[in-house]
Amino acid sequence: MENPNSLKESLLPSSLESSHGHHQKAAVKRRRFRRCRSAPLTDRVVNGDGPAPSSETIPTSLHPSLKKVAAFLSIYLGVGVICFYILEPQIAGKKTSDVVDAFYFCVVTMTTVGYGDLFPDSVLAKLLACAFAFSGMALVGLVLSEGADYLVEKQEVLLVRALNAHQKLGPSDFMKEIETKKAAYKCLLVFIVLLVLIITGTTFLALVEKLDFVDAFYCVCATITTLGYGDRSFSSEEGRVFAVFWILVSTICLAQFFLYIAELHTERRQNALIQWALTRRVTNTDLEAADMDNNGHVEAAEFVLYKLKEMGKITQEDISLIMEEFEELDVDQSGTLSLSDIKLAQSPPPIR
Amino acid sequence: MENPNSLKESLLPSSLESSHGHHQKAAVKRRRFRRCRSAPLTDRVVNGDGPAPSSETIPTSLHPSLKKVAAFLSIYLGVGVICFYILEPQIAGKKTSDVVDAFYFCVVTMTTVGYGDLFPDSVLAKLLACAFAFSGMALVGLVLSEGADYLVEKQEVLLVRALNAHQKLGPSDFMKEIETKKAAYKCLLVFIVLLVLIITGTTFLALVEKLDFVDAFYCVCATITTLGYGDRSFSSEEGRVFAVFWILVSTICLAQFFLYIAELHTERRQNALIQWALTRRVTNTDLEAADMDNNGHVEAAEFVLYKLKEMGKITQEDISLIMEEFEELDVDQSGTLSLSDIKLAQSPPPIR
Repeated sequence: MENPNSLKESLLPSSLESSHGHHQKAAVKRRRFRRCRSAPLTDRVVNGDGPAPSSETIPTSLHPSLKKVAAFLSIYLGVGVICFYILEPQIAGKKTSDVVDAFYFCVVTMTTVGYGDLFPDSVLAKLLACAFAFSGMALVGLVLSEGADYLVEKQEVLLVRALNAHQKLGPSDFMKEIETKKAAYKCLLVFIVLLVLIITGTTFLALVEKLDFVDAFYCVCATITTLGYGDRSFSSEEGRVFAVFWILVSTICLAQFFLYIAELHTERRQNALIQWALTRRVTNTDLEAADMDNNGHVEAAEFVLYKLKEMGKITQEDISLIMEEFEELDVDQSGTLSLSDIKLAQSPPPIR
Repeated sequence: MENPNSLKESLLPSSLESSHGHHQKAAVKRRRFRRCRSAPLTDRVVNGDGPAPSSETIPTSLHPSLKKVAAFLSIYLGVGVICFYILEPQIAGKKTSDVVDAFYFCVVTMTTVGYGDLFPDSVLAKLLACAFAFSGMALVGLVLSEGADYLVEKQEVLLVRALNAHQKLGPSDFMKEIETKKAAYKCLLVFIVLLVLIITGTTFLALVEKLDFVDAFYCVCATITTLGYGDRSFSSEEGRVFAVFWILVSTICLAQFFLYIAELHTERRQNALIQWALTRRVTNTDLEAADMDNNGHVEAAEFVLYKLKEMGKITQEDISLIMEEFEELDVDQSGTLSLSDIKLAQSPPPIR
């Protein structure tokens, strides 16, 4: 899901300036009074695992960590188990031990498998189950977007290293390999984990729940896809203990696998576009279009910006926004920033 | 999911050049022999709804359209209905008419609701149901990422226009409003549709399936979250005809809603980072770091690149890749590209 912006091109810097003239001036004033406490930053700012920049303006908890995901998961399961343990008489179906059933019901609801071997049988239990299904969906989404991806990325480096052990890649080649084929390696990694989970689940269902092989495999498939028809499910106490962990991991794993396939698709598309932008012949028209300051030749930075736009990494809107700031800072209107420019631009105004 | 690239910074242009020297030269040769048939391109390249650029190198069907999604959906449902219509004797549970049941079973499987009121009862039917569940998941993913988002974005413009009708926004302000709050408006739009679907579903279940109000609402919630315990479901023929359409739309709608909430979160994070990068004080160190060609002052394009990196929109790796091409084209090594540079760089080599 890139940002499609067919209409953005009409936002030329000139039109922006005229419409935002007074906002801009007000902003300058505000900015001049603000003391700067932030250390100079490199592009580490955006790295999830790097230390967060200590600044007054940037929110500190930008990247919810694995800890946060684990905390939410614990709270969800904790509250769920207590609620359904108390409401146990209002839940109908095949029962084993109270605590195990409460746990099992929680996980089956949260992952939206919903076998129906246990189901709420009172108004209160039904409404509570609805609430748990919605919050469970949101939680699974959180696990997918934050926790799982983080874990997979950590393992990815190991996988790439193992797969390329015989090729003796240098550190820069190694990083390039990871960067350009990130999604492909993630897919592979999750696929391997998924296979292991499917085999484990099928074996367990065959041995412990005494299902025949086809039924065991069918139940595994119906579970990880969160179908959960419920004609086959975990009915013994030990089966449900296993199910709690296995369902949680395997449903998330399959969903993550599909996410990575989508990412792989985007990655291929992106790489094709980058390849195309990098290999296509540069024409006079390109040079003219790339020449931002109209001085008759294209500097390195101008060329990079032009190509980035072509690759779809940035838009004219992004550039326009920053150009507003540039023009503000370029007090002597020379078209370049020097030390004297920023001193002038950032000095306190003469009158308070 | 941005690209976290803590190690990327080590990829300095110099190290890249040395390791890829011979690849680069080979690429130049290949490039010199290629005739250019593509028209000069602006940044419209990446717009999903703009016309695809006519070029020999860029793949033409980069953006699967709504048509493609509709085609896949029709094929899936067509094949599904035929299969389960033929296998009808091997499906157990509460039955109504054959065709309706086959349709209903398909949709309930594809969306992974899996009530279990109809379930496969032979090895063949079970394995087929598994295959349909997996492909259904993939298909729903496709609908979510391509079809639904496309439809919502089309409607979004109307919503923003309606909501801001009294404010009389100019066209540039209007686009800015859409750009910065894209996800927020999408959330709102899908939430409204979702509310309508929930009310419709509950009313239908109460009136046609004769469920009491709580049960109807419970069944609606269990369906749209794809829980599908199966203790309450659509059991009449007219109920199942309604269910086919309603389940398909409402499950996708809720999933899309959660996706947009995640997008909203990313958007806020992104906007905070952009705001921070635009308002923080520029220091000497920044100027030095931004000065790509080390000529002592920062040109507009250099400043834009530096800020884009700070915002996390691009990485040093992106710049390095394009700088390789720049240095290749800059035959006279002047640090700028002129018409004579590209003529020299792209002229056929003297010896074949």
